Amino acid sequence: MKESGIDSQKIIRRKRDGELEYQPDDLTIEEPLEIRIGRKALATTMRTPGHDEELAAGFLVSEAIVRKREEIAKISASRRNMVIVNLAAGVKLKLNSARRFGTISSSCGICGKESIEAIHQNFPAIRSSNIRIDIDTLLSLPAVLRKHQGDFARTGGIHAAAVFDLGGDLKVVREDIGRHNAVDKAIGRSFLDGLLPLDQHLLLVSGRASFEIMQKALAAGIPIVAAVSAPSTLAVSFARESNQTLIGFLRPPSFNIYSHIERVILGSL
Amino acid sequence: MKESGIDSQKIIRRKRDGELEYQPDDLTIEEPLEIRIGRKALATTMRTPGHDEELAAGFLVSEAIVRKREEIAKISASRRNMVIVNLAAGVKLKLNSARRFGTISSSCGICGKESIEAIHQNFPAIRSSNIRIDIDTLLSLPAVLRKHQGDFARTGGIHAAAVFDLGGDLKVVREDIGRHNAVDKAIGRSFLDGLLPLDQHLLLVSGRASFEIMQKALAAGIPIVAAVSAPSTLAVSFARESNQTLIGFLRPPSFNIYSHIERVILGSL
Repeated sequence: MKESGIDSQKIIRRKRDGELEYQPDDLTIEEPLEIRIGRKALATTMRTPGHDEELAAGFLVSEAIVRKREEIAKISASRRNMVIVNLAAGVKLKLNSARRFGTISSSCGICGKESIEAIHQNFPAIRSSNIRIDIDTLLSLPAVLRKHQGDFARTGGIHAAAVFDLGGDLKVVREDIGRHNAVDKAIGRSFLDGLLPLDQHLLLVSGRASFEIMQKALAAGIPIVAAVSAPSTLAVSFARESNQTLIGFLRPPSFNIYSHIERVILGSL
Repeated sequence: MKESGIDSQKIIRRKRDGELEYQPDDLTIEEPLEIRIGRKALATTMRTPGHDEELAAGFLVSEAIVRKREEIAKISASRRNMVIVNLAAGVKLKLNSARRFGTISSSCGICGKESIEAIHQNFPAIRSSNIRIDIDTLLSLPAVLRKHQGDFARTGGIHAAAVFDLGGDLKVVREDIGRHNAVDKAIGRSFLDGLLPLDQHLLLVSGRASFEIMQKALAAGIPIVAAVSAPSTLAVSFARESNQTLIGFLRPPSFNIYSHIERVILGSL
């Protein structure tokens, strides 16, 4: 995922003591990935190379273009910076999904109030069930994520997303320069393994929880989302409407719960 | 920019001592903004409300849709979550710019190698000149940014972008849940004040420097970009090709210089 000093001669470090030195540096790689359905270019995303098939699969799940593993006949990442997805015979690219890409912006996958309603047409709210996570398990997760986050420690420029089961076992962790991409990769891996819906699982993200993260979690059927940093207002309201538990600032021993606290086994309040 | 506890009864805080309490919370507001040119919807971005005209103006500058202040006849943000821009008579919406929005993705404003070349057609590299910034001035900037960053301190979920002159005087600072939006707002304000190109200025961002940030800076003619966090590989290679000085990890007394060090007045090396 990394190249060591793309031109190390030109990187200069001012050290804490004020001394200057030439230094090699690790940088997070950012390159464009074009996702195609057959010959049709669907979207281009700036991502950290690696796990590109998963990224494409997760993107298609998030956009409600595919729902079941068997709807994808083939995913090929044999060309640099391009993934070609062949849908199974009979699976049509839904126009209402495809049309949405016309108004996609640089910072938003799916925007607007009408779109929020459209999302709920594609992805109904999480069904109520008796799934629970206890505090000790929840508090153990950030350390597990960090342990698997080699790149972040080195570059400080990469996001991570991980899927855990409710016993706290790590199922998959992925890193990317883009928050959404890290989530797409983690969900895409699970999708390709035939594991969706992830209705007995938790998604942990290393940064903030925006609306889009909640939407992707909902697309994968994930009932609990935890973020190391802050959620946005829209993430919170979306979580409440979608019957998702949203935990923010998960920094042991502290955390906040913004919605559907019933899934966290708390002591007395 | 903030609402105090959108449903404070439901936010629960686990404190460091393990005690639980109900707590109001400040959350960064995230809402969609639709940018229209006349009646044509151009893009929708998830942003923190406020300074919406600036955001729209900065976006149009970044996308090479307008270059001069007088090309915009009117910007109106009178409808909630919508900005309507009227171009001056005779200013046409360039097809090559508008067409690009068809492939915009959720995490990328302008993607792909061909697009990088297209950007350089729209925005030539910074012209060489004798502008310089000295280390003491550079090291003073993060503290100034933080002082003006009320929202970040409270929510931990907001980015900031600031334009400084080369003497270290703050010209404009803007905050937003989206990095690109904060930059668009800061540049948009400068554009609306008729100050472009900002060829005697520096852009400071509170987070990482991605490709897109460098591209927006180039669109505004900014020769020096500094980031508190890491740059990406593509940001570095773009900066080198664009004759932009890129400083990362600006955390006094340390920083890294990734490109065009000649604009930083260093001691001996």
